[in-house]
Amino acid sequence: MEANGSKKQHSGRGIPGPTNPMVTPMLTDLYQFTMAYAYWKARKHQQRAVFDLYFRKNPFGGEYTVFAGLEECVRFIANYKLSEEDINFIKKNLSVSCEDGFLDYLRGIDCSDVELYAVPEGSVVFPKVPLLRVEGPIAVVQLLEAPFLNLINFASLVATNAARHRFVAGKSKTLLEFGLRRAQGPDGGVGASKYCYIGGFDATSNVAAGMLFGIPLRGTHSHAFVSSYMSLDEITNKRLRRKDGSSTCEDFLSLVQKWQRKIQCSNSLRSISAETNQSELAAFTSYALAFPDNFLALVDTYDVIRSGIPNFCAVALALNDLGYKAMGIRLDSGDLAYLSCEVRKIFYTIEKEFGLPGFGKMSITASNDLNEETLDALNKQGHEVDTYGIGTYLVTCYAQAALGVVFKLVEIYNQPRTKLSEDLSKVTIPCKKRIYRLYGKEGYSLVDIMTGENEPSPKVGERILCRHPFQESKRVYVVPQHVEELLRCYCAGISDKKAEILPPLKEIRERCIKQLEQMRPDHMRRINPTPYKVSVSAKLYDFIHFLWFNEAPVGELR
Amino acid sequence: MEANGSKKQHSGRGIPGPTNPMVTPMLTDLYQFTMAYAYWKARKHQQRAVFDLYFRKNPFGGEYTVFAGLEECVRFIANYKLSEEDINFIKKNLSVSCEDGFLDYLRGIDCSDVELYAVPEGSVVFPKVPLLRVEGPIAVVQLLEAPFLNLINFASLVATNAARHRFVAGKSKTLLEFGLRRAQGPDGGVGASKYCYIGGFDATSNVAAGMLFGIPLRGTHSHAFVSSYMSLDEITNKRLRRKDGSSTCEDFLSLVQKWQRKIQCSNSLRSISAETNQSELAAFTSYALAFPDNFLALVDTYDVIRSGIPNFCAVALALNDLGYKAMGIRLDSGDLAYLSCEVRKIFYTIEKEFGLPGFGKMSITASNDLNEETLDALNKQGHEVDTYGIGTYLVTCYAQAALGVVFKLVEIYNQPRTKLSEDLSKVTIPCKKRIYRLYGKEGYSLVDIMTGENEPSPKVGERILCRHPFQESKRVYVVPQHVEELLRCYCAGISDKKAEILPPLKEIRERCIKQLEQMRPDHMRRINPTPYKVSVSAKLYDFIHFLWFNEAPVGELR
Repeated sequence: MEANGSKKQHSGRGIPGPTNPMVTPMLTDLYQFTMAYAYWKARKHQQRAVFDLYFRKNPFGGEYTVFAGLEECVRFIANYKLSEEDINFIKKNLSVSCEDGFLDYLRGIDCSDVELYAVPEGSVVFPKVPLLRVEGPIAVVQLLEAPFLNLINFASLVATNAARHRFVAGKSKTLLEFGLRRAQGPDGGVGASKYCYIGGFDATSNVAAGMLFGIPLRGTHSHAFVSSYMSLDEITNKRLRRKDGSSTCEDFLSLVQKWQRKIQCSNSLRSISAETNQSELAAFTSYALAFPDNFLALVDTYDVIRSGIPNFCAVALALNDLGYKAMGIRLDSGDLAYLSCEVRKIFYTIEKEFGLPGFGKMSITASNDLNEETLDALNKQGHEVDTYGIGTYLVTCYAQAALGVVFKLVEIYNQPRTKLSEDLSKVTIPCKKRIYRLYGKEGYSLVDIMTGENEPSPKVGERILCRHPFQESKRVYVVPQHVEELLRCYCAGISDKKAEILPPLKEIRERCIKQLEQMRPDHMRRINPTPYKVSVSAKLYDFIHFLWFNEAPVGELR
Repeated sequence: MEANGSKKQHSGRGIPGPTNPMVTPMLTDLYQFTMAYAYWKARKHQQRAVFDLYFRKNPFGGEYTVFAGLEECVRFIANYKLSEEDINFIKKNLSVSCEDGFLDYLRGIDCSDVELYAVPEGSVVFPKVPLLRVEGPIAVVQLLEAPFLNLINFASLVATNAARHRFVAGKSKTLLEFGLRRAQGPDGGVGASKYCYIGGFDATSNVAAGMLFGIPLRGTHSHAFVSSYMSLDEITNKRLRRKDGSSTCEDFLSLVQKWQRKIQCSNSLRSISAETNQSELAAFTSYALAFPDNFLALVDTYDVIRSGIPNFCAVALALNDLGYKAMGIRLDSGDLAYLSCEVRKIFYTIEKEFGLPGFGKMSITASNDLNEETLDALNKQGHEVDTYGIGTYLVTCYAQAALGVVFKLVEIYNQPRTKLSEDLSKVTIPCKKRIYRLYGKEGYSLVDIMTGENEPSPKVGERILCRHPFQESKRVYVVPQHVEELLRCYCAGISDKKAEILPPLKEIRERCIKQLEQMRPDHMRRINPTPYKVSVSAKLYDFIHFLWFNEAPVGELR
């Protein structure tokens, strides 16, 4: 307990450690330690450096990204401490000549001198704009590079993927994340559940994520459950109490069978229900006996229309007799658009035939390798699905499995630094910067602008020139109606700033949903969206190009 | 300690828990618990069931897969135990009507009655063939579905990806996994490091993986290290002891500068080294002072040929004067084929000019978004790269981010079960099965054959008919020269079998490398590889088609 207590003291805020206990100072690249040693050897390790964390291109061919992973970064550095075991391992792996003084230095590192500024988690963000600005002794900040990138890259990627799926599915649909089994490892699964929830999903199948983060859980049964039944004889305990507790039905199975015959005799339903699979009926009946209050059945083990649906309806009608309301069905194969429409028709037929108000509106869940494209295709074709269960394509970000977030030195010892590249998109924007989001009359955000740390901030109603960081001809005057500074302090380090309190998950999710709604629709389009403008102030533009001119080597043709 | 002790007793083998502490019984889908409850309510939970875990299609357009993740599955079930906190959470999330007796049942589950048979980890495997056969009470085995799939899906996918990269790179190259920062979460990174090593990589940058698994670590410095230096004045401590300890050079920087002038004056090198970047030289010198024994420099921060390489050579030659041998350089941008060839020429020029045997053969490492295609393109163009550092595309399996491993019921209560589907590839092969790999005269494996549990095993020299499981016309006689039974017992459960001991990581890696070498080359081709034959015995074929015929509904056209 003492060890924990002393850890918390460093942050002064009682911040718990990272969700995954594997996130320790050792979850970094070896070269962060070799560089730390080289800095230390050169007595340069305490020089204060500023690093920006940003990405260069929005994922999935889109023009926006949801920023996520911040809380885990803050938890990580608030509890940063190398153990003696860690130190010994580093000693063995660095170099024969590694000096003990360096190990003592490592022992003392606790990140209490690191300042962390960030865009709030759940914000909509754009390329080139720093999501994190990290300031501190260069050797320490360097050690944070790989863990920060790891914690933010996938988090932001999968939150963005979730937001994109939500956009296509529409606000009225229920979205369930079903990806644990196909995720890239255990916390690929847990992380996906968390960040898909931030990005706008409603619930997850992942019990661990429900327990860790309070995300609503959903799930009923699989095909194996259905195939595990062989006949109706397997149902031995057939008793079911009425929902109101007033009496007990001694033979629920008979009640189901009674309804099965009624369906078979109905003129409008006869064609679909002549010969349903009896082991499936056994499985459904058994499942309803266990979950009379939330009976939802997977209906495609044998044949949706000619077995699954009539069997489901018989059980649902029997439940109704006892005061229970069935929840609905899940389709996991076949033509989801066609099947959902057919199923809806049957539900309405039942509603009419047996006078059951609401039966027609019963929930239809669809799963089976869904992604943005299939959701879009379903919309175009027309369907009756209320709820989507989405797994593989969502959680592994199948359409683009990685986001290229980078961590670049922009200032050291008060000297701005840049990294040139022949590829313009790879040039680093130097200096410790401030970032503002400028909003227009209609409430939409118009442009993000980066300025030097000490420039005056843009003012509401005052015209400001926003320049493309690299292309001279691209610039625009903006008169903002509202100005929002994006980077906030999350770890005060040696400064006297007040650090933000980490918001609860629901608040992060609400921020995300709200910010997405504030985006101009043309930025959100799936096909050929308009790029959002990211700019620099005139002063920063001039400075970038001055540095550039000075540092770029002059070519020589022979 | 007691709790641990009693956990270990169940397995009887002192098997440690999963690498990631997040892998607990709660890392499963909610529906596994709802099904367990429904089985329990129906008094069906103790029925012994057999599930097969397998995949339907090889990843990456290839015709082979490397099986990985088994050890974590064994560790998981050997330590399976729900905590009181888990039980309370399940109670709250299952249903208002959830009975206490079920919670008591959950409390008692420890997987000691589960039998686990598996292909050895690191084996080359093929579609439809069970990688795992899990036998036990249906409610328990059902709970294992999601964690087993999670632990095997990504492990096998990324091990296969590593093996494919190794195949293209060739045996003589050194392959480094550099993916932590882009991986899908913390143990996306740690898992990738482990399973890429199994698949044939030589080392990782990931310190945590080095510490957890003993994988060799590699890494030197980044661009930020170079940009953090502004001038040679920053080098204050210039002393460097000779490697043999006989004396100390008081001003290593002067020695470097002496060599810089020599290079500049050399007729054959003058053109490249007129004006190198001095802050880069400062960074290299500083790095060499920290790591004289393993100096490897990243040479593309400014300009590879006109700055990075001449600066590197000056430092390497100075080190050589003091008895140290530089390791080489890393290229992280540009035309890697062209640059590596140019660099190699310069190294040989230095070797010749200054009479330094071995300098020409210095190691050239290449990184920067490498994947199978870029490696292949480099090979075709010709290059001088010795070592590849591969990150994003490797660890996120960018070309195909998920493997579709599934877990299907094949038998319950001694009754074979199947799951039909209109899609042939989705039909489940029923029955508890044995799997054999049959080898031909040349030592290559010819075919995998599945038989019923009690059929006689194929015999060396005896002709056996191998049938395609679904297509009547596809069959072949095989006379095996060697027969290998694939499924081995890893958890004996209630049987009297002897469980295999989990092999160390290096042994798994060696198995993988050896098995890949035993594959017929046409199965391994990148483009249009020949499918490997997966078959069933004549008896099993007949049985599958008997079940199929009985269970498939007869369609009706109107």
